[in-house]
Amino acid sequence: MNNFTFINPTKLIFGKGQILKIGREIPQNANVMITYGGGSIFRNGVYDQVKAALKGFNCIEFGGIEANPDYDTLMKAVSKANDNNVDFLLAVGGGSVIDGTKFIAAAMKYKGECAWDFMVDQSGINDLELVPMGAVLTIPATGSEMNNSAVISRRSTKEKLSFAARANYPVFSAIDPQVCYSLPKRQISNGIVDTFCHVLEQYMTYPTQSYIPERFAESILVTLRNIGPKLMEDNSDYDLCANFMMCATMGLNGFISMGVPQDWATHIIGHELTAIYGLDHAVTLAIVGPSLLRTMKEEKREMLLQYADRVWNISGKSEFELIDEAIDATQYFYERVGIKTHLSDYGIGDENFDEIAGRFSRRGWNLGERESITPDKVLEILKGCL
Amino acid sequence: MNNFTFINPTKLIFGKGQILKIGREIPQNANVMITYGGGSIFRNGVYDQVKAALKGFNCIEFGGIEANPDYDTLMKAVSKANDNNVDFLLAVGGGSVIDGTKFIAAAMKYKGECAWDFMVDQSGINDLELVPMGAVLTIPATGSEMNNSAVISRRSTKEKLSFAARANYPVFSAIDPQVCYSLPKRQISNGIVDTFCHVLEQYMTYPTQSYIPERFAESILVTLRNIGPKLMEDNSDYDLCANFMMCATMGLNGFISMGVPQDWATHIIGHELTAIYGLDHAVTLAIVGPSLLRTMKEEKREMLLQYADRVWNISGKSEFELIDEAIDATQYFYERVGIKTHLSDYGIGDENFDEIAGRFSRRGWNLGERESITPDKVLEILKGCL
Repeated sequence: MNNFTFINPTKLIFGKGQILKIGREIPQNANVMITYGGGSIFRNGVYDQVKAALKGFNCIEFGGIEANPDYDTLMKAVSKANDNNVDFLLAVGGGSVIDGTKFIAAAMKYKGECAWDFMVDQSGINDLELVPMGAVLTIPATGSEMNNSAVISRRSTKEKLSFAARANYPVFSAIDPQVCYSLPKRQISNGIVDTFCHVLEQYMTYPTQSYIPERFAESILVTLRNIGPKLMEDNSDYDLCANFMMCATMGLNGFISMGVPQDWATHIIGHELTAIYGLDHAVTLAIVGPSLLRTMKEEKREMLLQYADRVWNISGKSEFELIDEAIDATQYFYERVGIKTHLSDYGIGDENFDEIAGRFSRRGWNLGERESITPDKVLEILKGCL
Repeated sequence: MNNFTFINPTKLIFGKGQILKIGREIPQNANVMITYGGGSIFRNGVYDQVKAALKGFNCIEFGGIEANPDYDTLMKAVSKANDNNVDFLLAVGGGSVIDGTKFIAAAMKYKGECAWDFMVDQSGINDLELVPMGAVLTIPATGSEMNNSAVISRRSTKEKLSFAARANYPVFSAIDPQVCYSLPKRQISNGIVDTFCHVLEQYMTYPTQSYIPERFAESILVTLRNIGPKLMEDNSDYDLCANFMMCATMGLNGFISMGVPQDWATHIIGHELTAIYGLDHAVTLAIVGPSLLRTMKEEKREMLLQYADRVWNISGKSEFELIDEAIDATQYFYERVGIKTHLSDYGIGDENFDEIAGRFSRRGWNLGERESITPDKVLEILKGCL
């Protein structure tokens, strides 16, 4: 087992009707700014619950935070918050709203000229003064509700950067599984695949005799395997939705990364496909993930065999077959929960493969848990995505 | 899934040599009091590591905290700490030292006449002013290093009470698995059984469709099943010790209790056996646990079947046989890791059974996740322990 440090101070308030309890988690007399996205919270009843919970608080609102939250949008929120002496932020939405609000929390007190700078040069990232924030989650997928990282886009300069200030966790996150009842199927598909892939990035590396984190990861994978197809049939079953939301939160809150190496190459390669083609993040994971496993199966051999056995219950075959069938099962699972797994399904060919591999080459990036996914390997992985 | 709230702010600093890093977790200029027990920390090198880590801090020490930490001992520590303007406590030891230090942390600033009172009338327990504390764990078993509860004895009045002030978590806990190398076998046996039973108390109830916490619990049970006998053979294997310590911490830090009911009757009945006969806590759990499962097997039927399948891999039999074999396997496991499971093994008969059942009757306590373990049932459970 590798040495590790684990901390996660976020308070989870989970279950039916729990959004109504958030008022007691916010300091009395706080000036609160509620942040949200495109307005689904007005249609699914979450806004009304939040307003009821915040009765008596001095509240302003900032809406319109887009998917892949944009720097320019967020800076408008920063101005509005500072103009109104806001001292508590409440993100009501999915990962983009929560990520965006983490940025607002850090940018509000930033002393430098341009808040983008603290993400470019991250040397002072843990010294940033942060405005406290809470969250009400409406879409299970990113895990942002219980971690300290955020990804921010800057469309005006075509940049996309992530940051993780040490203390930038939501103070609390309220999760009512009933929010899933009104989610479009596409967001459920994306949430299932995003979560599954988050877990694989922390699991599918090489063994470090970290039995508990490995089994915790398998707990999430097996649960998603079991509930994913059912959720696609029926997202009005409370317990299915509750387990789905718990999978998403537990998949990226540090519980499964204790003592183990991490990969994240599927995400990094996928980001390029989103950047070029505008594919949904989860779609890129479903496309790149299986091809990456096939390309790297020698290096990931031991964990692939464990995965075949414990997650897919495949046994009694040669190692070669076990591994291939486990990868096939993964790909079939993504398809079964509604996401096509080939670039050709989206009308995309190999026209930009060299450009993508070239970007990694120019950055000098070798990816993966052993940094063995060279630009050549990226090209090979991309060819497997066709 | 039941509604739940989860929070656990303790920072885990886990691995080889990690004790040396604790200095950075303590406020500069703090006046630190190091608390410890019988002095094993001087023999296993932990004291030297702690002193090296705290170089430059103003430190005093308080040793001699006994197993089942005693109120009178702890009040001496409170006086010493207050006399020396201590503002940070560092517990270096096992569950008793950490529990005792949680009490010191609460008693130091207590305004009332007698600090015992805040445990008798717990109405103000969350308003207690707490001195911050950290921990260096030397014995895996109780999980106290990553939760906010403590059990304190008062030998002068034959009382034993527990308390859990909301914020009374260690700020950090350093865990170096190498501390297991010098543990006596008896403490390893006790730690394995204590942890296994902690998990069962939170798992073996009735299903609430809380798939993730159930599988997290099974992760710990299966890991203990696998490593327990090996640890008894060889407690100098780093990865075995690391997984053992992780099991103990994760078994009682809230990760597995999200959304599920809890039992704790085995612990409560076991406490009476400790009170009357002075048996080790874990010994009482190994004696009472299997008998309780047999007595309550109708009510726990569904989880027992799941347990038989997922923890003991027993299949292809009647429900009746599956349940009985799973309970037998549990009892055999306790014996295999070195703890005898019958009262008769300790020269104890039925002479106090009526007294014990009578205590529950007089207190009006019905135990278990459904409060269906009446004093009559306690008597039946005790008879099964002979």
